[in-house]
Amino acid sequence: MLNDETKIEAVSRYIEAFDKADLSMIRALYAEDAVVEDPVGSDPYRGMEAICEFYESGISMGAKLKRTGAVRLAGNSAAFPFIVEAAGMKIEVIDVFEFNDAGKVVSMRAYWGAGNTIA
Amino acid sequence: MLNDETKIEAVSRYIEAFDKADLSMIRALYAEDAVVEDPVGSDPYRGMEAICEFYESGISMGAKLKRTGAVRLAGNSAAFPFIVEAAGMKIEVIDVFEFNDAGKVVSMRAYWGAGNTIA
Repeated sequence: MLNDETKIEAVSRYIEAFDKADLSMIRALYAEDAVVEDPVGSDPYRGMEAICEFYESGISMGAKLKRTGAVRLAGNSAAFPFIVEAAGMKIEVIDVFEFNDAGKVVSMRAYWGAGNTIA
Repeated sequence: MLNDETKIEAVSRYIEAFDKADLSMIRALYAEDAVVEDPVGSDPYRGMEAICEFYESGISMGAKLKRTGAVRLAGNSAAFPFIVEAAGMKIEVIDVFEFNDAGKVVSMRAYWGAGNTIA
C-alpha cells in the first residue's frame, strides 16, 4: 500500500498542473492504461492519449481547482473535495484517485452534476 | 437515473439516523444485497444483516455526522464530505453512495484513514 504522503503529493501536483496550465504534470501522474470517468456516469476516457486530450481542453479553458477539505486517504485511494472554476462557472466536485503500487493513478472518478454549479 | 432530490434526501436521512440513533432509518436506506466498505480497502460488509451490525456499533458509540460540503451528484451516485465525531475523536470522511433504480443504496464506500483524524 502506498504511503499517505505519496497520495497527498499527487493531489497537490494535480491542482498545481491546472494552476500552471502544464499538461505534462498531469501526464506524469497517470499510468499508461488509466481510466478517467468525469463525471461519473459518462463514457470514460481510457489510456494516456484520451486522458491527455480531455485535460488539454480543461486546461485550455483555464480551469483552476481549489481544494475545500482534507484529502481522504483509504487503501490505495485518495478522495478530495474541491471547487473548479472555468469559463465563469464554479462547480463543486469530489475526485477519487486510485493508485497502483508504483504510485501512478490508474483510475480517476469525478463526482459532480448540474446541481453542483454555484454562483 | 434517479433524480437529484432522492439522492440528497437519502444523504440527509443517513445523517439524521445517527443524530436520532435510529438504526431503522439506516436499514430503510439500503438494498438487501448492499455492500459497505468502510474504510475503503477493508473487508466489506455484505448484505443487510452485516451492514446493520456494523452501523449498530457506530450508533451505540454515539457517532454523529456533520456534512462539510455539498452532496456531489453524478450518475447513480452521490458523494459527500463530512466529519464524524465519536468517542471523543473527529475524523474527516468522504462517503460515496451508489443507488439502484428503486432509490436504495447498493454500495457505500467510505474514504478515510488514520491521517484524517483531527483534534
